Amino acid sequence: FKPDELEGFDQVGVVNGLAWTSVGGELLQVEVSVLKGTGKLELTGSLGDVMKESAQTAVSVVRRIGERYGIDPDFYKSSDIHIHFPEGAVPKDGPSAGVTIVTALISALSDVKVRHDVAMTGEITLRGRVLPIGGLREKTMAAYRNKITTVILPKQNEPDIEEMEPVVRQALTLRPVSQIEQVLQIALCEGQKKGPRQPLPAQKPLPAATGEAPVHSSPIPIPQ
Amino acid sequence: FKPDELEGFDQVGVVNGLAWTSVGGELLQVEVSVLKGTGKLELTGSLGDVMKESAQTAVSVVRRIGERYGIDPDFYKSSDIHIHFPEGAVPKDGPSAGVTIVTALISALSDVKVRHDVAMTGEITLRGRVLPIGGLREKTMAAYRNKITTVILPKQNEPDIEEMEPVVRQALTLRPVSQIEQVLQIALCEGQKKGPRQPLPAQKPLPAATGEAPVHSSPIPIPQ
Amino acid sequence: FKPDELEGFDQVGVVNGLAWTSVGGELLQVEVSVLKGTGKLELTGSLGDVMKESAQTAVSVVRRIGERYGIDPDFYKSSDIHIHFPEGAVPKDGPSAGVTIVTALISALSDVKVRHDVAMTGEITLRGRVLPIGGLREKTMAAYRNKITTVILPKQNEPDIEEMEPVVRQALTLRPVSQIEQVLQIALCEGQKKGPRQPLPAQKPLPAATGEAPVHSSPIPIPQ
Amino acid sequence: FKPDELEGFDQVGVVNGLAWTSVGGELLQVEVSVLKGTGKLELTGSLGDVMKESAQTAVSVVRRIGERYGIDPDFYKSSDIHIHFPEGAVPKDGPSAGVTIVTALISALSDVKVRHDVAMTGEITLRGRVLPIGGLREKTMAAYRNKITTVILPKQNEPDIEEMEPVVRQALTLRPVSQIEQVLQIALCEGQKKGPRQPLPAQKPLPAATGEAPVHSSPIPIPQ
Amino acid sequence: FKPDELEGFDQVGVVNGLAWTSVGGELLQVEVSVLKGTGKLELTGSLGDVMKESAQTAVSVVRRIGERYGIDPDFYKSSDIHIHFPEGAVPKDGPSAGVTIVTALISALSDVKVRHDVAMTGEITLRGRVLPIGGLREKTMAAYRNKITTVILPKQNEPDIEEMEPVVRQALTLRPVSQIEQVLQIALCEGQKKGPRQPLPAQKPLPAATGEAPVHSSPIPIPQ
Amino acid sequence: FKPDELEGFDQVGVVNGLAWTSVGGELLQVEVSVLKGTGKLELTGSLGDVMKESAQTAVSVVRRIGERYGIDPDFYKSSDIHIHFPEGAVPKDGPSAGVTIVTALISALSDVKVRHDVAMTGEITLRGRVLPIGGLREKTMAAYRNKITTVILPKQNEPDIEEMEPVVRQALTLRPVSQIEQVLQIALCEGQKKGPRQPLPAQKPLPAATGEAPVHSSPIPIPQ
Ligand SMILES: [Ca+2]
Ligand SMILES: [Ca+2]
Ligand SMILES: [Ca+2]
Ligand SMILES: [Ca+2]
Ligand SMILES: [Ca+2]
Ligand SMILES: [Ca+2]
Ligand SMILES: [Ca+2]
Ligand SMILES: [Ca+2]
Ligand SMILES: [Ca+2]
Ligand SMILES: [Ca+2]
Ligand SMILES: [Ca+2]
Ligand SMILES: [Ca+2]
Repeated sequence: FKPDELEGFDQVGVVNGLAWTSVGGELLQVEVSVLKGTGKLELTGSLGDVMKESAQTAVSVVRRIGERYGIDPDFYKSSDIHIHFPEGAVPKDGPSAGVTIVTALISALSDVKVRHDVAMTGEITLRGRVLPIGGLREKTMAAYRNKITTVILPKQNEPDIEEMEPVVRQALTLRPVSQIEQVLQIALCEGQKKGPRQPLPAQKPLPAATGEAPVHSSPIPIPQ
Repeated sequence: FKPDELEGFDQVGVVNGLAWTSVGGELLQVEVSVLKGTGKLELTGSLGDVMKESAQTAVSVVRRIGERYGIDPDFYKSSDIHIHFPEGAVPKDGPSAGVTIVTALISALSDVKVRHDVAMTGEITLRGRVLPIGGLREKTMAAYRNKITTVILPKQNEPDIEEMEPVVRQALTLRPVSQIEQVLQIALCEGQKKGPRQPLPAQKPLPAATGEAPVHSSPIPIPQ
Repeated sequence: FKPDELEGFDQVGVVNGLAWTSVGGELLQVEVSVLKGTGKLELTGSLGDVMKESAQTAVSVVRRIGERYGIDPDFYKSSDIHIHFPEGAVPKDGPSAGVTIVTALISALSDVKVRHDVAMTGEITLRGRVLPIGGLREKTMAAYRNKITTVILPKQNEPDIEEMEPVVRQALTLRPVSQIEQVLQIALCEGQKKGPRQPLPAQKPLPAATGEAPVHSSPIPIPQ
Repeated sequence: FKPDELEGFDQVGVVNGLAWTSVGGELLQVEVSVLKGTGKLELTGSLGDVMKESAQTAVSVVRRIGERYGIDPDFYKSSDIHIHFPEGAVPKDGPSAGVTIVTALISALSDVKVRHDVAMTGEITLRGRVLPIGGLREKTMAAYRNKITTVILPKQNEPDIEEMEPVVRQALTLRPVSQIEQVLQIALCEGQKKGPRQPLPAQKPLPAATGEAPVHSSPIPIPQ
Repeated sequence: FKPDELEGFDQVGVVNGLAWTSVGGELLQVEVSVLKGTGKLELTGSLGDVMKESAQTAVSVVRRIGERYGIDPDFYKSSDIHIHFPEGAVPKDGPSAGVTIVTALISALSDVKVRHDVAMTGEITLRGRVLPIGGLREKTMAAYRNKITTVILPKQNEPDIEEMEPVVRQALTLRPVSQIEQVLQIALCEGQKKGPRQPLPAQKPLPAATGEAPVHSSPIPIPQ
Repeated sequence: FKPDELEGFDQVGVVNGLAWTSVGGELLQVEVSVLKGTGKLELTGSLGDVMKESAQTAVSVVRRIGERYGIDPDFYKSSDIHIHFPEGAVPKDGPSAGVTIVTALISALSDVKVRHDVAMTGEITLRGRVLPIGGLREKTMAAYRNKITTVILPKQNEPDIEEMEPVVRQALTLRPVSQIEQVLQIALCEGQKKGPRQPLPAQKPLPAATGEAPVHSSPIPIPQ
């Protein structure tokens, strides 16, 4: 198989999601642009209704928690937000890109890069809970194929980890989370500014979140 | 069966509803976020038309009675309201979440927490009447599974209580109501601020509502 | 059969309509809330297109004649109007709730109560004519079951009175009308303010409306 | 057959149209209300798309020619216009009510009554031409049944007059027209203010319109 | 056959188009009204989506080139434009009325009459190119039947001229064009103000357009 | 076959795209007009949903990068943008016109001409990446037929070059790109102002883009 062409550097407003379709898992990037404007929200990329609602929920989450990340609380009326999923001809649906969209929004609005070697999946709720998703096995295979090192997944999907391909399970650092703040702490580059990037070591759980250490404490190089 | 993962603490803007589907009863949470804005109403979670209209009716009820709960009467134009039902891929419909939505709105707008051990079901009308619903037996089984201690139900559903599972009937405190004010008096935490939370004892009926005492006067611990 | 639970007191903005469905007649209440706002019209209760247009026509009638009932002529831009038909899951359609909606609007906007023992049916036109409806026999049976004492019906339906159930015909005071002003004179409580409520005696026809006396000049107690 | 109940007096904003359906001709009234407002156009009465467009065309005609009839040229932004066709449950469509709608609009906006014994049919174009319609035979039968004395029809339908029922043709005064100004001159009551109403004698053609005298120069009493 | 009734004089905002349907060619007039307003665009006459887009394209063309014809460049926000195709019950679609709509718009906005003996067909592009159309043979037959003397057609349709009916080809002056400015030069009456109207002689090609002389250099009287 | 009629000169706001349909490749021009306005976006030409979203994405790209090309950053609210694809009756869809639309927008907004002998294809993402497309063989045949000299294609489509017709491959200069800035550097005429136009020699890769030289270093004259 031919791995999708990923850009090998961290960017603002671009986050790796993971999708699960009838033909397997797939890396599904989201792009967010913040444009000077009047508060319009643009959603493109052949998104189904559930996915559009997921994006609206993500925007509301960011409006509620954005100030903690240095985001102007009036962004929703002084900016236009465009959320786009590339490969515009491919229909996409489902709620599992929720955490991906929140992360891309926070990145674009705060001008903080996102780790390009991290991928994630999880439904988001209005108050920031991360709900379980389907297809973890297939999604992690897609992450592995695309040279992702770290996958963020919902804590409620931990029982599904045992069904992963052994080689994939060995290669990836899995980070189960239950709150969006944990996702952002892992995926945003802010903490990495003062030195060369290293694969993230196992992190201490967030003060407000109880004990969700990475399933694999040290990343394993991806075989090629 | 695996109980849904409920958070074990009271929150603002989060209320436990009860749904009845072809595969049984289910706990159906509603989340409400109040965001500084311009009066937009956002409804997400794969809601059908009847449920959307139920939410609009709930908003009108809150606009009418909100001041009694300390809510700024201009909220409808200075705030955006987002009402979300998690598990965004699951279609949801019907009017029976009416009281749940009113409660979540009042909580979010007045910043008062809602009891996390209470669940409720009931259609709401524009002037605050609570109309009967279907599936009481299945809904109360879902409440029991999720460690709810108190279920608020429409007074007109009292005849359906005898069809409940005996063990569920023993475990739950049932609170039949006919007006939304009764729902709020039971579910909002305001009265519990000055001391440790206790399972609510049987309450006196509201002055304006005639004699709807709990069916079970003392809560029974849920077996595990 | 179990009679619908009607509240036994007069209210503002609540009027008893009568619907005719494939399974018989039914009491169909309408609720109107007037909220400080910007002129939005909200229609809920699973209404079909004809019924929605009927509500819009009713609003226009009230905008034209409202001042005679002490209603601020600018209400249409300083208020939001919500018209709701309870039992939100039941589809409702047809033009025959026109007079009911006008009455509820006038009541809510002028803060005058509506008689709870009166029910009504009739299509409304833009200049206030009351047009004939179908299902008089079934509708009056529903009124009788719900302990209504007085039914307002279109004058053009007088020929259908002979098809009513004899016991229903004996029990109900029938008030044929051809203009909305007649409906309002019968249904609004204003005239009853100065004394205890009595079942309405036969009224003199309105000056502008020719000779439409009640078909039964004195109300007959409803057997129970 | 039972004739529709027509009100026997001239009114403002009410005009008799003539419709042609699969079950024959029918009198189809249009009602127009002009309400203080902000320029909204409301169309009700189960109108099909062609009929809605016909109403929009009629409004544009009135915006263009209204000043000649004393109408405030800014009405389109200081008033809301409601155009309603009674019997709201009956679907209606087609362009042949165009002249009827223009006449009702001019009447309502200029506060001039319309002759209640006149009925009309004809498509209207943006610059006021009257285009031919179908079903003249059936439509004139409906006019006859409803005690109409004068029928305005498109000049291009003159060849269809010979297919009319002889008794109907004898009873009605037919007024073929090709321009909307001719319609208004016949139907508006303005000219009749100074004396008792008489059935209109044959009129001179309008200066700008060539020679369209009534087909019957003197009205014939309708047999009853 | 019975020729459509055409008015025998030049008008502002009225242009003869040519349509091609399954039953042959047809003369298809467009009417444009410019009303004091706020920039709304009204499209009526049972137009299909392609034709509506064609009208929007025509409006954009006029917004771009209008000043050359003395049109206030702010017309798009100080006027409402109504584009109507008579015979409102007949569905119409396709892009070939593009040049007709542009001509009617320019005429209505600049108050210059359009030649009533000219008919035209051609798709318009945003920068004013005239693209080829279908049905030239049928369309020119309709023009001939309606006593048109001059037909404007797309230059790219010149190869189709040989398929025209010989008698029609003899009777009509054909004017192939590739740019909208050529259409306007032929159809607008401005140039004819100083003297009696003559059938247009063969014109010099526009400076910017290369050599598109009329196919027939002198008009031939239409036999009757 | 008959080649489409292309205008033989460079224009502002007109760009040659390449489409791939069931009947082969086709040259598909896009036209953009920028009109003084209020920020409306008009999309015409029978575009499917994917293509409309592609246009919206293109607009957002231009809002983000436009200033580098001298475009007023407020254009999105002081101008109306009309994007039109001629041959309005032909349905068009898919994301592969993304780069074409961006190029036409940049040209129209900056008043810089676009090379008329260049055609292009490629999906655009929000941050300006050029994604691969289908039908390269057919699209390049259409370019060849239309006397295009240079075709811009996505770098990820380089493997498809070997499937091109040999004669086409000989005749065309192919320019694989991965970023929109490369497209603009090739297609915009700005760089050619100081001298007679020459077929573009192989260009140095953009500083920010790594080594994408033309596949054919010198253009080959098209046989006729
Ligand atoms: Ca892919
Ligand atoms: Ca799932
Ligand atoms: Ca669940
Ligand atoms: Ca129910
Ligand atoms: Ca009922
Ligand atoms: Ca009826
Ligand atoms: Ca009738
Ligand atoms: Ca017809
Ligand atoms: Ca015709
Ligand atoms: Ca064609
Ligand atoms: Ca083509
Ligand atoms: Ca593709």
